[in-house]
Amino acid sequence: MNPADGLAFGAEYPEQTHSEVIAAISSAASAREPFAALTLAKRASLLEAIAIEVENLRSHLVAIANLETGLPEARINGEISRTIVQLQLFAAMVRTGVHLGATIDLADPDYKPVARPDMRKVNLPIGVVAVFGASNFPFAYSVIGGDSAAALAAGCPVVVKAHPSHPGTSLLTFQAVQKALLSQGLSPDIFTMVQGRSPEITHWIALADEVAAIGFTGSALVGQLLVDLSHSRAVPIPVFAEMGSLNPIFITAAALDERATAMGENLFDSATLGSGQFCTKPGLIFLGGDGAEFVAAMRSKMGSLGTQPLLNKGISERYNSVVSALAKHPGVETIVGEVPDQGFIVQPTIFVLDYQMYKANPEFSHEHFGPTTVVVQCTESDFAEIIAHSEGQLTATLHLAIGEIRPELVRALSAIAGRLILNGAPTGVSVSAAQNHGGPWPSSSTHTTSVGTDAIYRFMRPVTYQGFPDELLPPALASGNPEKIERLVNGVRGLN
Amino acid sequence: MNPADGLAFGAEYPEQTHSEVIAAISSAASAREPFAALTLAKRASLLEAIAIEVENLRSHLVAIANLETGLPEARINGEISRTIVQLQLFAAMVRTGVHLGATIDLADPDYKPVARPDMRKVNLPIGVVAVFGASNFPFAYSVIGGDSAAALAAGCPVVVKAHPSHPGTSLLTFQAVQKALLSQGLSPDIFTMVQGRSPEITHWIALADEVAAIGFTGSALVGQLLVDLSHSRAVPIPVFAEMGSLNPIFITAAALDERATAMGENLFDSATLGSGQFCTKPGLIFLGGDGAEFVAAMRSKMGSLGTQPLLNKGISERYNSVVSALAKHPGVETIVGEVPDQGFIVQPTIFVLDYQMYKANPEFSHEHFGPTTVVVQCTESDFAEIIAHSEGQLTATLHLAIGEIRPELVRALSAIAGRLILNGAPTGVSVSAAQNHGGPWPSSSTHTTSVGTDAIYRFMRPVTYQGFPDELLPPALASGNPEKIERLVNGVRGLN
Repeated sequence: MNPADGLAFGAEYPEQTHSEVIAAISSAASAREPFAALTLAKRASLLEAIAIEVENLRSHLVAIANLETGLPEARINGEISRTIVQLQLFAAMVRTGVHLGATIDLADPDYKPVARPDMRKVNLPIGVVAVFGASNFPFAYSVIGGDSAAALAAGCPVVVKAHPSHPGTSLLTFQAVQKALLSQGLSPDIFTMVQGRSPEITHWIALADEVAAIGFTGSALVGQLLVDLSHSRAVPIPVFAEMGSLNPIFITAAALDERATAMGENLFDSATLGSGQFCTKPGLIFLGGDGAEFVAAMRSKMGSLGTQPLLNKGISERYNSVVSALAKHPGVETIVGEVPDQGFIVQPTIFVLDYQMYKANPEFSHEHFGPTTVVVQCTESDFAEIIAHSEGQLTATLHLAIGEIRPELVRALSAIAGRLILNGAPTGVSVSAAQNHGGPWPSSSTHTTSVGTDAIYRFMRPVTYQGFPDELLPPALASGNPEKIERLVNGVRGLN
Repeated sequence: MNPADGLAFGAEYPEQTHSEVIAAISSAASAREPFAALTLAKRASLLEAIAIEVENLRSHLVAIANLETGLPEARINGEISRTIVQLQLFAAMVRTGVHLGATIDLADPDYKPVARPDMRKVNLPIGVVAVFGASNFPFAYSVIGGDSAAALAAGCPVVVKAHPSHPGTSLLTFQAVQKALLSQGLSPDIFTMVQGRSPEITHWIALADEVAAIGFTGSALVGQLLVDLSHSRAVPIPVFAEMGSLNPIFITAAALDERATAMGENLFDSATLGSGQFCTKPGLIFLGGDGAEFVAAMRSKMGSLGTQPLLNKGISERYNSVVSALAKHPGVETIVGEVPDQGFIVQPTIFVLDYQMYKANPEFSHEHFGPTTVVVQCTESDFAEIIAHSEGQLTATLHLAIGEIRPELVRALSAIAGRLILNGAPTGVSVSAAQNHGGPWPSSSTHTTSVGTDAIYRFMRPVTYQGFPDELLPPALASGNPEKIERLVNGVRGLN
């Protein structure tokens, strides 16, 4: 369906059957051993080849993704670039071998309390990884997004469950990956994909014996379902689910005195960027001082906001129903944008309320996907209580005046979030080694990151080899360091 | 109870009540922030001070542990030394700061695909850690064993649930830790302990809001219970449960031709060491060639085996019941040691059977705590099937003849175990950086190690600080590297 007009278009994508889903998983499982045995150089080349094939298809990908998601072309182009950068970053990491965590403790007869045998530890790929594509990032968190790139970089075959909101985009991306596998002389089984809307597909994948880990970005409901399904298995598997977040913003009185208008405009943009469909959208803004100017700036921005449709019918219907319910609360100011009644376009809406009203109505502190945010007029003395009662968050943002130092707030926020931002906005997630995209439950199911190079460690597990000769060791652990990777030998790090 | 005579002795340890358990957890929670803020040097000093206090009490600890566990004094002395080494290794690691994983990506306006803000990531302590002491290691896996040492090293307050088999040993060890806290001028709340036999205590701890992670070594039953309890929480927490393992041994025909007697004797010792109460005891031995000489060597060793009691009444009763049931299978050879009928002393028993019998009777492939192992006469061609059907294991051992190279067996075994041993025995777990003590489910609940310095990472979680000045950053991330720790700055590792 095209979100701009709400109409179906193009070919139908058939729902995949149980036997097709199981076949996709079995194919991936058959590739497990040979793909794990691939050299680091060849695995890096594969990631680079995929990046090239995605780039080659860029104009076609932009066209179909624009039709299927309603996201503007510039945004899609940026996301494709990010997807390519993610693949390139993992390729560079794989070439260094640092992700293998190669650690060697040589035999030592004098080791205390007892003599030590030769011990060599390395991270091995965990096995077949199932990746559930997200609706809101048709590239960076979809078919060959961060989870898939990390899994391939780790040496794991991937089974993708494409998001039904963008089946054509998914198929074209899948074909880019298949072209790269072919060009590298590798088996197509390394990367398989299934399509469909039925929730049963999720069950089939999550309960399959051959699936060793799950990467997921989406709703708390489906994230919890995947965690529950894993728990019900005879052999539970790690589920790396990123399930949403309110990304609260805390603004001190002094910061409001200093730059209320600039912050109001900036956070309005952050909250409505991409129609408010980012997992890092600021969904709660706490004003610790006089908020009149801040709210006025938001109100003024609302007048000039362009319209963007939401990603699909379900999201737009949920948004409309939740926003109209929230707007009924007496004593809550609603700032509403004017939009045409067309496709999945919805009214951007900002709610302004005081702290007592906020505390009395917990529905304001639930995540609402779409162009809306909640501004709470409170005082700085309320911040400690708000933070103490907060659920786990992907991010938390603090705005201070120039020269203002509030270490107690930074410490408190560090207990509830995976990333803290000072004087900025949480949207815009840089892909780098120092990134952490993940936070305490329920924002994520584990304390790991799904963005940046550290995401690779989710799909590896350590194995120690005790007393093995070079011929029987993985090359990463052999004497003489044949792969020239970074290792820790008797506590000394280097290319030794 | 003294396992040597099965009689109760000494004072009674009162069962701790719900309010006492909750108070212990609340005390630990109150220490969370100040303990997390401690400098690396002070945290390292605490670990060293605990090591000193344990050493000071060594003779008293040996005496009480010998009475409570029936383990011989030499074994207890060795375990105390290991416990001290564990504390010292973590102290040395904490001083380097390497566990903080400090990663800095400086702001870069030219970063692709978009400009990068200043991003700094560090591992923070996860919060209060609950540690469940194990019965079979009254020191190394008990009150101040590997889990507690790792948690304190990470900066987490600890609540210990002492194992009811050695309450006096636990209390004395707890007092050593308290002395160290006092000598370092630190709050006693950093380390609390509860005692009791009631399973309710386990529920109270695992369901307490303030508990952020669990370390456990023990039975699959209790490990699974802890995983289930965590899953039932509104906010699930990581449960690091080590739940037992069969530690299978695979011996090729050529190795049997070469040194059957030496291997039989060596593996007999490994299987009966500490009355077969190690989590790495070889519980299954697969002979890929003629096993007559190997079995004869085991039979001959049985005659000279001294007697050792099992740790407690429950373990000895379960052992006797299981072993007598297994011995009833027709066609199974049982080799039995003669022992006095006294206390919790049990008959060491080795079962020898063929592969058809093994496949037909799955009870031979369950873990049986105590001085028993199962020897399966098969052929090398059966190994692939055996490995493919194996559950997850802490260890797997391969015996090859000199010059024999079997990479396909090593690869297959690497998929089922966390540590592989060549031509040795799985007992004897070296405490070092390259150690991995953990394996696929059900041997462990996660792919992490509970032994060695990497165990610290189970009790930390990453947090990224975006755009913060030095005054608001943890010292590990500040410019100029005030703590002089190892960091990764723009991809370059060093003291920069």
